[in-house]
Amino acid sequence: MAKELKQLTKRAENYSQWYNDLVMKADLAETAPVRGCMIIKPYGYAIWEKMQSVLDADFKRLGVKNAYFPLLIPKSFFAREAEHVKGFAKESAVVTHYRLKTSDDGKDIIVDPEAKLDEELIIRPTSETMIWHTYKNWIHSYRDLPLLCNQWCNVMRWEMRTRPFLRTSEFLWQEGHTAHATAQEAEEMAKKMLHVYADFVENWLAVPVIRGVKSPTERFAGALNTYTIEAMMQDGKALQSGTSHFLGQNFAKSFDVTFLNKENKPEYVWATSWGVSTRLMGALIMTHSDDNGLVLPPRLAPLQVVIVPIYKKAEQLDAITEKVKPVIEELKAKGISVKYDDDDTKRPGFKFADYELKGVPVRLVIGARDLEAGTVEVMRRDTLEKESVPFDGIAARVENLLDDIQKNVFEKARKFREEHTYECDNYDEFKKRINDGGFFLCPWDGTAETEAKIKEDTQATIRCIPLDVDQTNVTGTDMVSGKPAKYKVIIARAY
Amino acid sequence: MAKELKQLTKRAENYSQWYNDLVMKADLAETAPVRGCMIIKPYGYAIWEKMQSVLDADFKRLGVKNAYFPLLIPKSFFAREAEHVKGFAKESAVVTHYRLKTSDDGKDIIVDPEAKLDEELIIRPTSETMIWHTYKNWIHSYRDLPLLCNQWCNVMRWEMRTRPFLRTSEFLWQEGHTAHATAQEAEEMAKKMLHVYADFVENWLAVPVIRGVKSPTERFAGALNTYTIEAMMQDGKALQSGTSHFLGQNFAKSFDVTFLNKENKPEYVWATSWGVSTRLMGALIMTHSDDNGLVLPPRLAPLQVVIVPIYKKAEQLDAITEKVKPVIEELKAKGISVKYDDDDTKRPGFKFADYELKGVPVRLVIGARDLEAGTVEVMRRDTLEKESVPFDGIAARVENLLDDIQKNVFEKARKFREEHTYECDNYDEFKKRINDGGFFLCPWDGTAETEAKIKEDTQATIRCIPLDVDQTNVTGTDMVSGKPAKYKVIIARAY
Repeated sequence: MAKELKQLTKRAENYSQWYNDLVMKADLAETAPVRGCMIIKPYGYAIWEKMQSVLDADFKRLGVKNAYFPLLIPKSFFAREAEHVKGFAKESAVVTHYRLKTSDDGKDIIVDPEAKLDEELIIRPTSETMIWHTYKNWIHSYRDLPLLCNQWCNVMRWEMRTRPFLRTSEFLWQEGHTAHATAQEAEEMAKKMLHVYADFVENWLAVPVIRGVKSPTERFAGALNTYTIEAMMQDGKALQSGTSHFLGQNFAKSFDVTFLNKENKPEYVWATSWGVSTRLMGALIMTHSDDNGLVLPPRLAPLQVVIVPIYKKAEQLDAITEKVKPVIEELKAKGISVKYDDDDTKRPGFKFADYELKGVPVRLVIGARDLEAGTVEVMRRDTLEKESVPFDGIAARVENLLDDIQKNVFEKARKFREEHTYECDNYDEFKKRINDGGFFLCPWDGTAETEAKIKEDTQATIRCIPLDVDQTNVTGTDMVSGKPAKYKVIIARAY
Repeated sequence: MAKELKQLTKRAENYSQWYNDLVMKADLAETAPVRGCMIIKPYGYAIWEKMQSVLDADFKRLGVKNAYFPLLIPKSFFAREAEHVKGFAKESAVVTHYRLKTSDDGKDIIVDPEAKLDEELIIRPTSETMIWHTYKNWIHSYRDLPLLCNQWCNVMRWEMRTRPFLRTSEFLWQEGHTAHATAQEAEEMAKKMLHVYADFVENWLAVPVIRGVKSPTERFAGALNTYTIEAMMQDGKALQSGTSHFLGQNFAKSFDVTFLNKENKPEYVWATSWGVSTRLMGALIMTHSDDNGLVLPPRLAPLQVVIVPIYKKAEQLDAITEKVKPVIEELKAKGISVKYDDDDTKRPGFKFADYELKGVPVRLVIGARDLEAGTVEVMRRDTLEKESVPFDGIAARVENLLDDIQKNVFEKARKFREEHTYECDNYDEFKKRINDGGFFLCPWDGTAETEAKIKEDTQATIRCIPLDVDQTNVTGTDMVSGKPAKYKVIIARAY
């Protein structure tokens, strides 16, 4: 492993290869033998589980309830909302048969041609159509509203270019689907979920995000408005990390979902949907990690502290173990996950490299000399700084250090983003500088033409109209069209 | 709802219809618009989530780690283990294409014939093949063993006759897959998981189970040995509620998974797999519920206590609310979920019927007269017994009552099973009595012929060779063949 670690590509050499190496070598995920799919390994899945448990509690606090809807969607449902099918048809996995059989010569297992489905079924790329078909039976009166459901599940989009976590044919996600009596309430729900996502990503993943609105071109297929959180990776590219959609009455109309209002008159229901996926794992990995491996914010690290004893004789190990035991208990009592690694089949150097690769936030090393001196060596993974400190009070020190690391990795990422965000209203300058990555805050005339031109010339896209920039008094001119600007937008290349 | 409740079919009239009615009316699940699939509604899903969280903690205590493997399995993998494919080929949903397009006349959305997959993909009916393909890369040395993984996911088996929770084309489950260095260790793991399941089902679902071994005919496709837990439903039929398989080296051989032992010699790995599914919801519902609706064991009830105020004037409601508030806090502090239902748009009678239908274990009713008398009415859902008790100390009383209900529903089910379990060694008698349901403990000669004959004549099957019956000194003769018996087995009709 210590050897393999050296083979981790350096970020400066090839950022993309570094990411792929890291995902594999840190035991997060690996490529599956099915095109574009991945296997999430136990260490990676443990991080995803932590994300799930925090978000799930957030949702429940807002009164959202979990449910489960079918994996397969009849093709005809899927086609009902015109924009929606346009958006997803090109990447749909289709089930056409329901049986295999042995071939006539007995040599092969083949698809039984007699077991053809009357109507093809699509593996859900997202569940709006199935859910709105269901909501028709659940919603009759204003008393049934709001209806707030979420599901944790797998979805499938047959992507052509895939990368573990960032873009895979199958991925895990949650999809919330809410139904409301008024447009205003639905729009507020969509915004509320945006902030739930943003707060979660900042406070737990320690990834700073820009909260904004998508341009019409970049909206979810079938939405009237898409809210997004956009994070900056270490190569200056944007990663869309979560979206929340105001769907208007589109799906209610396609699936004929009405309710009787207080005046006993039928109205179409207003809708939102919102989701985050295993893509967040990509954001987490790419934001903080370095050439030595993963850097994990302590709040999401499956293992927060590792203690490695250094010894030559068995008696020394016994003495260290005795000394360390109460500290382990103390840390556990504080809710901190800790491992005492006294495995004598591996050298300390190997262990150090492995825990660095895995991003364990704090490492304690204690040797015979430390025992005498009453000290212990503390290393923090984020800065790789080592320090010899008094053994007494080490549990409290570690607890503070974990908090400090959580804040520091966020602050570092925030600073990086700040240093790579530029105001720009000159297209030539933009075209030159976009090659080095970064977020460009630019005046935009609000037209799809400008947007298309930028994308064509530079592969960069309007990531969002940021909510924290005053959009009411935008001055200046669009850098492409020269027309008066309507918005200030964030433009960047993106994953 | 009070009206609808009356429409719940009585068990004595039509047990099967009663079950279907109950699943729908208690808001547990409904039939999906995809053949044989179901939608799990929030109330049903909340119970499943509770089951998941308890089991997941059990697994983790044993060192099992969660991971995620792909939904789709290449047809060629699937075909590698001969018995396995034989068992699942007939019910496989097959993905053959990866794109839809608009038809030439622009009117329809059709499957794009040009987007045909080179190799068809099967939606996993279970993941042994994918996982053992993966384990080949994870296992090299005895140091990599044991390897203990689990995944929570959806699976699909294209069943012809389906019923919500009991048998659906898509269902949710967990599947554990472990790899070991020795046959003995693997066999022990398979047994250990059987007991984890049995303890969970008895302690949480309050469903008593028979722990046993399947006959060779009833084994999982590809297993050398299948352990099972079998529960008795109120109609006397058996429900297989969880299975754990000793897979020998079958999958290791099919996927060429070897490890270097301590002597540095390659050996094939030994395997187990084990799973429980949303079928457990069926066991839970059918074991305890009655003609008024669900009866839930308190430990799995999403809502454990409901408090309904009875009042005519607003001041009375205020006084009741004031009185009840500290009790609600006290119950919550004890970890008991409680709802105070002061919704004035619904009459008390409606509420009572609804909470009975939903199986809320304890109902408290408090009216103006109770306020004066310092009393409160307590109803327990399992026996429907009502009692007026002093208001003081009500939280502690409720806490004890919940424990008592948990024990009582288990004991009732255990007694029911006892009363419907018969020793039988006369085939004529068996054929007569099997029509009334029940478990029959019969001597068996151990041959597949006898087993087949019983199934053909009566549709009953050998559910298991029970572990708690001494199988070493079996006397008597097989009731079909008249040959000396080798085992005492449980025979029953089953879901």
